[in-house]
Amino acid sequence: MIDLIQYRALAEKIFADIREFSFDGVGITRESYGRGESAAADYLRGLAESEGLAVQADRAANLVFRFPETPASNSVIWMGSHMDSVPQGGNYDGLAGVVAGLLCLVARRREGVGGPLEVIGFRGEESAWFGKAYMGSSALLGKLSEADLALRRRGADESLGDCMQALGADMTAIRAGERLFDPARVRTYLELHIEQGPVMVARDLPVAVVSSIRGNFRHNHIVCEGESGHSGVVPRWLRHDAMFAVADLLMRLDEHWRMLQERGTDLVLTAGIVGTDPAEHAVSRIPGRVAFSLEARSRSTDTLEAFYQLVRAECSAIAHERGVAFDFDRRVLSAPATMNTRVCDTLSAACAARELAHDVIPSGAGHDAALMANAGIPSGMVFVRNQNGSHNPREAMDLDDFMLGVQVLSDALEPLSA
Amino acid sequence: MIDLIQYRALAEKIFADIREFSFDGVGITRESYGRGESAAADYLRGLAESEGLAVQADRAANLVFRFPETPASNSVIWMGSHMDSVPQGGNYDGLAGVVAGLLCLVARRREGVGGPLEVIGFRGEESAWFGKAYMGSSALLGKLSEADLALRRRGADESLGDCMQALGADMTAIRAGERLFDPARVRTYLELHIEQGPVMVARDLPVAVVSSIRGNFRHNHIVCEGESGHSGVVPRWLRHDAMFAVADLLMRLDEHWRMLQERGTDLVLTAGIVGTDPAEHAVSRIPGRVAFSLEARSRSTDTLEAFYQLVRAECSAIAHERGVAFDFDRRVLSAPATMNTRVCDTLSAACAARELAHDVIPSGAGHDAALMANAGIPSGMVFVRNQNGSHNPREAMDLDDFMLGVQVLSDALEPLSA
Repeated sequence: MIDLIQYRALAEKIFADIREFSFDGVGITRESYGRGESAAADYLRGLAESEGLAVQADRAANLVFRFPETPASNSVIWMGSHMDSVPQGGNYDGLAGVVAGLLCLVARRREGVGGPLEVIGFRGEESAWFGKAYMGSSALLGKLSEADLALRRRGADESLGDCMQALGADMTAIRAGERLFDPARVRTYLELHIEQGPVMVARDLPVAVVSSIRGNFRHNHIVCEGESGHSGVVPRWLRHDAMFAVADLLMRLDEHWRMLQERGTDLVLTAGIVGTDPAEHAVSRIPGRVAFSLEARSRSTDTLEAFYQLVRAECSAIAHERGVAFDFDRRVLSAPATMNTRVCDTLSAACAARELAHDVIPSGAGHDAALMANAGIPSGMVFVRNQNGSHNPREAMDLDDFMLGVQVLSDALEPLSA
Repeated sequence: MIDLIQYRALAEKIFADIREFSFDGVGITRESYGRGESAAADYLRGLAESEGLAVQADRAANLVFRFPETPASNSVIWMGSHMDSVPQGGNYDGLAGVVAGLLCLVARRREGVGGPLEVIGFRGEESAWFGKAYMGSSALLGKLSEADLALRRRGADESLGDCMQALGADMTAIRAGERLFDPARVRTYLELHIEQGPVMVARDLPVAVVSSIRGNFRHNHIVCEGESGHSGVVPRWLRHDAMFAVADLLMRLDEHWRMLQERGTDLVLTAGIVGTDPAEHAVSRIPGRVAFSLEARSRSTDTLEAFYQLVRAECSAIAHERGVAFDFDRRVLSAPATMNTRVCDTLSAACAARELAHDVIPSGAGHDAALMANAGIPSGMVFVRNQNGSHNPREAMDLDDFMLGVQVLSDALEPLSA
């Protein structure tokens, strides 16, 4: 078996180089289908080519790294993750998985081993830019709708479709909902990712195997319309205060959440973006309009659907009681996913063979692996321990932990290729 | 007695002219100590001078209109209001009172009546621009602190002190907290204002006499600091969600408010500005920071103080329960005020003499008259009926109602001068 640990210095250099040009003054910014993501893609392409690997964009503008001599028709194991980041995020969320795959390829190339391995660097996994996650893997699977492609980039007047087209994606096929690859060719999809929660640090586990991935529903932009007015003169019973209505909704949902948790239901709930309207708000004006996002995640599709009905019911009740209206944008759904048992067992066995303390844990965050799994491709994930969560600049993956994760993936390639 | 109703066409022209250059595309914008307010001041000065009136700025840059032959030492009745507006507000909030006074002066001038009348056009009454209200009357009364003068204009990097200085105010005296006029010279302060609430429309009253004015406490910028994190991976019991904490606070205060109302306590409560941090918020990020304003108003100083203690107590409880911190900026206080009984009776008698349906009602909104009253100047206010509230472009004062209000003020001048 190949010893990946000796590639630690290469990994360190790659992360440092990419960090340097992705730094935004506060954290790491790699815009989906934009400057930062493309800069990372260009860097990785250059590095891989200097190692004698073949690199090409797939029809959805994701990057594919392979041995130049492997026929494109051969069945392969895919290893990968995404190249973009949230604004002011960290360097490892996504990038670690692409680098892990690339290290496996480089090691095999240098040591003349080869094997049925391809690495994929997905674009557009983060929802922070267009309000939709998993865009690169969705495009590959023929799962982007016209409405998705019409989504506008945060703070800019360009659509997802325009941005994909500018990067050479096959928009005709994508708009037609075609699968852009032959799924029968892909035996397994493997993804290494930093853990984004606090579990592995608490349990002192450098690596873990992922059992399942939470799905979610999202509204990126719900508007609560009430009635603005002078704060001094409208008595309580004549108010239609949009901010109090939204606060009421959040507290009702918080109470439902608390009760569901006590019953053991898997659920998390977040209103990440909330605000009165800067064009008209003032200290002495009753807010007539509040816009907010709402997201719930669960490993259970049934829980998500039931909780969604609860959200709508509470909005109706509040609309009636407070004389406001809730205007919902399109609901965006991501299905929960279960990782393949054989793949999980193989990854666990690889950990055990290296005498690594590890565990099988669920993923709270979503990953491209969820789409691959739900498309019928046997999939598995390895988590690497990480301090301080993700989606912030304080992400702190230890490179030694990372190299252990890469070693596990590399070790698992043999049995999974059999 | 002078018949003011024949000056309706002049009133109409003044409002129309000022509306034209104050229109911002949506509503009326007259920035305190800024462009719009100064444009209105310049217009009113030109109009008054063309009628043979004397116009000069006082030492706080407010505008004073008078008969040129009246010695400046004579005791007078002041009539006035303010010239600024909120952003995207209406044309009548403030301006109506200045125009009312000016019409009384013009009528007396044209008809050779004279009398102990001066009209004052205050600057800077609206809190929307600097986060503080009654700046022009406060300056005149020596009640602006260094902290007040350091307040920055909404969306601009200029302080209140700089803006006042640029308009020629006597900053040395203002910083020293001097009274810039001799209060013994002012027998009475009268202010006409549109009603900003729904009471007079509901009761079908064209004019009303104001009994008292609500005071308030305000925090313009409270920050709730929690802990941001990936929305999918932090379970409920490990969250320090700043948005849920603020929603919790608003709902607790809403419940206190409801109970106090049931006991007959005079109170209104508003969080006019609330928002997650645009520099870091995202649909999939737990909000780590929410900034908000909080304002309560009451006719009772005791109620304001008791409710303030409740706000702080609930913030402490929520900070403890949810693991967040509330960081308060300076509390801004405006004292409630009671109008002078003799002035109120005189205004009521003037209404009765014209057989006008009227009533004596409290003012929910604050006015410069509150500061004059609390400075010991016998003060009174006339409200004019107004549809759709104020601080919005849909303000709708009927000019006939306005002229009735002006007539009442004019009629009251004789008995109040005696």
